Amino acid sequence: MEETFVPFRGIKNDIQRRLMCYKQDWIGGFTAGFRILAPTTYIFFASAIPVISFGEQLERDTDGILTAVQTLASTALCGIIHSIIGGQPLLILGVAEPTVIMYTFMFNFAKNRPDLGSKLFLAWTGWVCMWTALLLFLLAILGACSIINRFTRVVGELFGLLIAMLFMQEAIKGLIHEFHVPDRADPASTAFQSSWRFGNGMFALILSFGLLLTALRSRKARSWRYGSGCLRGFVADYGVPLMVLLWTSVSYIPAGSVPKGIPRRLFSPNPWSHGAYENWTVIKDMLNVPVLYIIGSFIPATMIAVLYYFDHSVASQLAQQKEFNLRKPPSFHYDLLLLGFMVILCGLIGIPPSNGVIPQSPMHTKSLATLKHQLLRNRLVATAKSCLSKQESLGQVYGSMQSAYWQMQTPLTHQEPSTRGLKEIKESTIQLASSMGSIITAVDESIFDIEKEIDDLLPVEVKEQRVSNLLQSLMVGGCVAAMPFLKMIPTSVLWGYFAFMAIENLPGNQFWERILFIFTAPSRRYKVLEECHATYVETVPFKTITVFTLFQTAYLLVCFGITWVPIAGVLFPLMIMLLVPVRQYILPKFFKGSHLQDLDAAEYEEVSALPFDLSAEGELSRTASFADDEEILDGITTRSRGEVRRICSPNVMSSTVTPSKEFTSLQSPRFLDKVYNPQVNQLNGNSRPRGVWRGPFSPGE
Amino acid sequence: MEETFVPFRGIKNDIQRRLMCYKQDWIGGFTAGFRILAPTTYIFFASAIPVISFGEQLERDTDGILTAVQTLASTALCGIIHSIIGGQPLLILGVAEPTVIMYTFMFNFAKNRPDLGSKLFLAWTGWVCMWTALLLFLLAILGACSIINRFTRVVGELFGLLIAMLFMQEAIKGLIHEFHVPDRADPASTAFQSSWRFGNGMFALILSFGLLLTALRSRKARSWRYGSGCLRGFVADYGVPLMVLLWTSVSYIPAGSVPKGIPRRLFSPNPWSHGAYENWTVIKDMLNVPVLYIIGSFIPATMIAVLYYFDHSVASQLAQQKEFNLRKPPSFHYDLLLLGFMVILCGLIGIPPSNGVIPQSPMHTKSLATLKHQLLRNRLVATAKSCLSKQESLGQVYGSMQSAYWQMQTPLTHQEPSTRGLKEIKESTIQLASSMGSIITAVDESIFDIEKEIDDLLPVEVKEQRVSNLLQSLMVGGCVAAMPFLKMIPTSVLWGYFAFMAIENLPGNQFWERILFIFTAPSRRYKVLEECHATYVETVPFKTITVFTLFQTAYLLVCFGITWVPIAGVLFPLMIMLLVPVRQYILPKFFKGSHLQDLDAAEYEEVSALPFDLSAEGELSRTASFADDEEILDGITTRSRGEVRRICSPNVMSSTVTPSKEFTSLQSPRFLDKVYNPQVNQLNGNSRPRGVWRGPFSPGE
Repeated sequence: MEETFVPFRGIKNDIQRRLMCYKQDWIGGFTAGFRILAPTTYIFFASAIPVISFGEQLERDTDGILTAVQTLASTALCGIIHSIIGGQPLLILGVAEPTVIMYTFMFNFAKNRPDLGSKLFLAWTGWVCMWTALLLFLLAILGACSIINRFTRVVGELFGLLIAMLFMQEAIKGLIHEFHVPDRADPASTAFQSSWRFGNGMFALILSFGLLLTALRSRKARSWRYGSGCLRGFVADYGVPLMVLLWTSVSYIPAGSVPKGIPRRLFSPNPWSHGAYENWTVIKDMLNVPVLYIIGSFIPATMIAVLYYFDHSVASQLAQQKEFNLRKPPSFHYDLLLLGFMVILCGLIGIPPSNGVIPQSPMHTKSLATLKHQLLRNRLVATAKSCLSKQESLGQVYGSMQSAYWQMQTPLTHQEPSTRGLKEIKESTIQLASSMGSIITAVDESIFDIEKEIDDLLPVEVKEQRVSNLLQSLMVGGCVAAMPFLKMIPTSVLWGYFAFMAIENLPGNQFWERILFIFTAPSRRYKVLEECHATYVETVPFKTITVFTLFQTAYLLVCFGITWVPIAGVLFPLMIMLLVPVRQYILPKFFKGSHLQDLDAAEYEEVSALPFDLSAEGELSRTASFADDEEILDGITTRSRGEVRRICSPNVMSSTVTPSKEFTSLQSPRFLDKVYNPQVNQLNGNSRPRGVWRGPFSPGE
Repeated sequence: MEETFVPFRGIKNDIQRRLMCYKQDWIGGFTAGFRILAPTTYIFFASAIPVISFGEQLERDTDGILTAVQTLASTALCGIIHSIIGGQPLLILGVAEPTVIMYTFMFNFAKNRPDLGSKLFLAWTGWVCMWTALLLFLLAILGACSIINRFTRVVGELFGLLIAMLFMQEAIKGLIHEFHVPDRADPASTAFQSSWRFGNGMFALILSFGLLLTALRSRKARSWRYGSGCLRGFVADYGVPLMVLLWTSVSYIPAGSVPKGIPRRLFSPNPWSHGAYENWTVIKDMLNVPVLYIIGSFIPATMIAVLYYFDHSVASQLAQQKEFNLRKPPSFHYDLLLLGFMVILCGLIGIPPSNGVIPQSPMHTKSLATLKHQLLRNRLVATAKSCLSKQESLGQVYGSMQSAYWQMQTPLTHQEPSTRGLKEIKESTIQLASSMGSIITAVDESIFDIEKEIDDLLPVEVKEQRVSNLLQSLMVGGCVAAMPFLKMIPTSVLWGYFAFMAIENLPGNQFWERILFIFTAPSRRYKVLEECHATYVETVPFKTITVFTLFQTAYLLVCFGITWVPIAGVLFPLMIMLLVPVRQYILPKFFKGSHLQDLDAAEYEEVSALPFDLSAEGELSRTASFADDEEILDGITTRSRGEVRRICSPNVMSSTVTPSKEFTSLQSPRFLDKVYNPQVNQLNGNSRPRGVWRGPFSPGE
């Protein structure tokens, strides 16, 4: 992305580029058929559950002025707007924890002022939103998002891990509270006697750990041995909502023998109950706010603006990491501008605004990569099977698969397919066909997974479209109506879900993987090398990795500490932004350039100011996709959806002919000689595994 | 084993053969040093915890006449006697569930008779023990144990799975009871209010599932990536007691906020409390029992004798399966005779008798195989290292390792080592040395696991000695004194431990693995082939496997159903014994001979009446140990102790030179062609993986 600070240029570029693929955004989504429901429900749950819980938190902290109805309404409204007229449809919007903290702070400030009070609170926040939007407009117009390039892997991963820590903290806090009497509850109630509180806490532990463990397991269903492929796929796709349902049912098992209120369940007023509509008419009161407060609201507005600028851009960046090989352009500037308008809208109708959220946004892209992979696979398998049944020659099979593959590509890529890709498909088709020939003579045909051959062939691609985002936003909107059902979910299931979200996003984060690597016993480090691993494992000395990781961990702990500071805590993004100059000017003084490059590749060190070019980008991603991405694909679909597959590059593994030398060397433990013996390494200079993840927040299990 | 029914011959043979290795039984145990403590504690826990729980059960059922003190005393006493003068020291003795059921039945009978009553109950059981012993003497003298050969894999595995089901049933029942008021407790107590019962039940679920999951995990500690090898080994060896300790500590966390009695803990009188000694003087009352009852006690005695004959022999057989490659002879007849004497002793001092127990006995052998493996490995690694540091030639390294290996063998094996074994070690030593040469020049020496090379080289051997059995019996005896500490263990931890014992013994049981195989999705069956697997997977059609397994499952369910029949239930072994003629005369009518052979190899079908010959046995096991057993070793140490290792035969895998053709074919998915394509199979007739487990109760994870 170009670093341009010419006013409006960023916005103009974004709009131009996204308009080019706008129609395809919709067509692509609808052609996916009912399968789009898998990523949609997955993201809907990831999006709705925290929003409901934040709503509950707001309800306690604002004396019931804002509730889950408002947070859900904001998430749905902003989500629908963004999915229809937003730039990057991969970005998921929602009311986030920092917003909740800011609103709580503002409420505590307002309720004690006689000329403001809780009556004019929402009107006052309307003014805060106005100022915030103004600042966001300025940032968008002046091209502030250009510097998003400078957010390297170190920054993104630190932020990702911090979010995971905050989610986990929320889960632990929630579980501890299950043992105590809630703040605004009636302590005389039976359910809050010490004996029932003990039972409630213990039950909460069971429900939350049950949800956490089964949800993590269900995500790996594709690699199960039992059950049909169809069932395994269904469990892997819809496992998380299924588990929420399952553990909610479990929570009703002891219903006959426990008093009402055990286990505790979500609490929220129904949207149709009295008073729930009051805040929609906030605009009437806005002129009643004293002028001094209108001006003073600029102070919280700056904080919110900084926060939104950072959150929104980083969430968008993490949803568009390089390893996803996205074909469509980003849209940072325009999306920030649109966010400004949505903040105004939310302010006027008295609901807290939404912004781009982590980890839901990268989760969204990951689930769409799996979807695209399945669609491509099904198509190619069907093509190959029909060709073989027609007794076509290998050349014909190859031709059919090739054309089927390109039919599935977005019409955006006008260029002729690169030779590399063609050859790759051709070779694999021949192997596939010859292996299928032998299958037919084999005893049990069903033993062979034709689909496996094709799996290994496919590059990482993402089904980029607007339908999943729109649908999930509509479903969040539907939650407002479904409140009576949502209220059946025990809060403890919610805490389990928070922990699930924290853990689900750890693998693939290089920072986290480096921490694990440091604790790996020296005699077991070869295991890391045997798996998919990043370049630094081989090129950077262990000591340097340790020092770098310790520095990052210390920085993380400081950031985490800051979130505990009463009000200024919401400004922790500033601390993370500070990491950008630290990375650029201070770290190079302590670490060797080449090591730093491998630990944290910064674009400004690689190629200076590569201008964004659609065709070049397309070409780049396509060639890259065939060269390196089978490994990454394994990384993404395998590790994120649970399918455990071979780690060697498939063009070698799937060969039916005599295995090449590379294969045997990769398989034998002697492979390590190569890696750790520099002399041998020089001879095999190119044996370094390719396909290293470059984005700041790698996908993974 | 010879089928001899000549009176006393079996006993004479047993004594003669065991006397030959009696001295070595002790020396071998003491030379193992402190490492013997790992299998000792492992078995001590597996032995003591059920005995304590059965004692608690007896205490409830006999109005406190018999308690955990008596069951522990019996287990310790019989264990000490058996470990010192018994025949097969691998056999573990203990008070088992059927004994408890029989005693409960006898108590219910006695307490309602005016001329017997609960006062003369123990004296009467003394007479029952007399008759039982008499019957056992007859069985031992007449060589009844000879027919143990006819107990094929089908019989042993069915029994193993039945025991696992009974343990699991006990665990589930126990957990459900945690929610109810115990029978003899005071329902007015705070801890039994419905609210606290709910809390207690929930807490019990957490403690038992916590113990189950962490204990299963800790057994696999050797394959962990984190922590030093020393720590991993410690956790794998002592993980189960550590976890009992951990979860017992956890059970004290809420101590401040819950009433006494939550969670429920073991209940047993201290041995020094008033009345605990009463039963030791039972012999005085024995003549007060009316003559009619003395004669009538023959009826329960026959039932107990049948039960003990079966349990004791099968437990001993399962502890001496073929795949363990035991060097020392079995001793079925003499052990049964000794059991008779111990039954008399227990009867006279008024404690329930002990007999050979499952699954503790095979668990004992398995843990000793791991011990022997570690000892051998440490010795060879030390030898290899010292040789290399002295810059000795490969030939010298080979010689030293060879002599070190033979020094570790039991002096029983007088024969010259077989050529096969010699060659194998030589080749591997050369590979080892050459790889170590390259290690030294490599960057990070610690990356290489020299021990791994040796691991793959070693055959399965068992440290056959008497020390572990004696020590664990002494420790069980120590439990009587440590009762105040044992009473701190929550009962729910005990239920978790029961479930652990049930699950820990499932893998390796071919019956269980066939059930899993049937439910494996057709497209995933190749995964079974990629791992260690038994012959039948390749040679028997899937349909035949299904039918055979369904028959076995139905039979198992009938046996399980019989255990529910009020009193006759203890005679379920008769039903299992009935399987012997069914297998011998009926099954061959429904299944092809070769299929039956692979599914359930019967010795009488293989070689008819092979006379037992020490030297031949030794030779057999030694040659076998080098040919097939690396795989079995992987099976035993790997799967039972958790180390996940490569599945290919090590002589191929560990080669540092160009990998052989066999290796590549094993690794590539095309290997399946071979297996499933009969044509190819004919060409590669010998490619069928060797090292198939033959014993009835295979070791495994």
